[in-house]
Amino acid sequence: MNATIIDGKSFAEQTLAQTRAEAQALSAAGWAPRLVSISVGDVAAAELYVRNQQKRAEAAGVGFEARNYPASISLEQLQGVLAGLNADPRINGIIIQRPLPAHIPVKALQKAVHPLKDVEGMHPASIGNIVYNDLELGPCTAVAAVEILKSLPLQMEGLNVCVIGHSEIVGKPIAFLMMGLGATVTVCHHMTRQVAVHSRAADAVFVAVGKPGLVHGDMLKPGAALIDIGINRVDGRTVGDADFDSCAEVAGWITPVPGGVGPVTVSILMKNAVRATRLQMEHYQAAFAAAV
Amino acid sequence: MNATIIDGKSFAEQTLAQTRAEAQALSAAGWAPRLVSISVGDVAAAELYVRNQQKRAEAAGVGFEARNYPASISLEQLQGVLAGLNADPRINGIIIQRPLPAHIPVKALQKAVHPLKDVEGMHPASIGNIVYNDLELGPCTAVAAVEILKSLPLQMEGLNVCVIGHSEIVGKPIAFLMMGLGATVTVCHHMTRQVAVHSRAADAVFVAVGKPGLVHGDMLKPGAALIDIGINRVDGRTVGDADFDSCAEVAGWITPVPGGVGPVTVSILMKNAVRATRLQMEHYQAAFAAAV
Repeated sequence: MNATIIDGKSFAEQTLAQTRAEAQALSAAGWAPRLVSISVGDVAAAELYVRNQQKRAEAAGVGFEARNYPASISLEQLQGVLAGLNADPRINGIIIQRPLPAHIPVKALQKAVHPLKDVEGMHPASIGNIVYNDLELGPCTAVAAVEILKSLPLQMEGLNVCVIGHSEIVGKPIAFLMMGLGATVTVCHHMTRQVAVHSRAADAVFVAVGKPGLVHGDMLKPGAALIDIGINRVDGRTVGDADFDSCAEVAGWITPVPGGVGPVTVSILMKNAVRATRLQMEHYQAAFAAAV
Repeated sequence: MNATIIDGKSFAEQTLAQTRAEAQALSAAGWAPRLVSISVGDVAAAELYVRNQQKRAEAAGVGFEARNYPASISLEQLQGVLAGLNADPRINGIIIQRPLPAHIPVKALQKAVHPLKDVEGMHPASIGNIVYNDLELGPCTAVAAVEILKSLPLQMEGLNVCVIGHSEIVGKPIAFLMMGLGATVTVCHHMTRQVAVHSRAADAVFVAVGKPGLVHGDMLKPGAALIDIGINRVDGRTVGDADFDSCAEVAGWITPVPGGVGPVTVSILMKNAVRATRLQMEHYQAAFAAAV
């Protein structure tokens, strides 16, 4: 094996430690960061995820409250709940847990979260700000993947990057974040004629499709960085979108699954929570100064 | 010369004719579309542009009012003007003319335009909606360039597209729009190592940089479509970013400058004005229905 395996857990610990220091400073100023997690209906699918977020929130010094609403709740009632949370200065971030019942469209809820409390970075305005290179709260998974790449000894300007997968919350934001750093970015997806043509030319490959074994070593340029964002269950094991063994032979760096992008994503959620709290504090202070 | 020259003027006329029919239907329903153009300070630089918009608005059956404010106006006063226009149901779209004086940051004004009146498609929420493939009002130039490509007999799904230039209002939105159509998109810019490597592999090339002669015929794949968005003044003539003669030898289709993307852009602005009016009508009707 040639590749250096990137330790996502240790990267996440560093991010959480920085975040904790910022959370303490905000708490001392009377603005203790606080998240509310909203899940609807049967929570079994999301429970592990929520519990993990709660643990990381504690590690980061961020308050965390998990709320569950019955599956019978209407979209309008949930929007009302969000309006209340938006207006409450003691709540600094709102997480919408998926899956949601079929009658609750996730986009309608994401749009109902105030952009300053959008710690998941899902509101259209948050996404638009990435395009404008004016990042405040970015989508956590995309930011996590890019932060991992940035930690490697590679020059981002002019880097040839291939993003496989063009979802709105992972692939596209990664593409725009990397463009903002000066990389030359190609985005591939299920309609791309030959993904390997693009991935083999890339210095760094991000893959976020949800297909185990999608990327093989022979699709990579020797020494390339491979950031694997896929999370798949195969025979009771969790694996990414890359065929780890063949890719690790060719790549220069590779993220494992589990233990790569996943832990970093949760640490970015906490970083967003602290940043959102600071933005809200500044927003209130400016409004108050204007009123005096 | 091998390339078919794309007639932007005739394309624009078709768009304006469709837009006019929709504008008449809205007028009959009591919602005559109406634009307000805001310029600040010396208008010489924008005057030709504004006059052209006014002419096209008339052709599309869209009301048009050009307002000019003195260079001494403050950002806060202008934001107040926009708040008034946002609240006025008789005004359906707001255009911010550039250049603005140095003390007026254009992004702050764009954010102050209500997303439903953002006919230029510049608000972060408008840009974010493109990423979400949920297009309501897109940036006019980017939409114009993509509409031209869509009119050619090419299959958009799987098309290899190279976008040269990664500005927030042209290059990046084109990339998103093309991804939404299923193309495989590479975005190049001034930090890209070898643009020709990417452009030569592309079935369609968009160029929006502002450098005359940037794209030569030897940078194209034979038969490719070349959409030239550049507008440059060279020796008193208006030219694009492509070296037209050498590109026309190699390309299958090419847009001229002037007479290519430019006229289509203004027709898309009018199409946005009509769409914005319809969205506002529906918004008011829904609010009224809820109040009854």
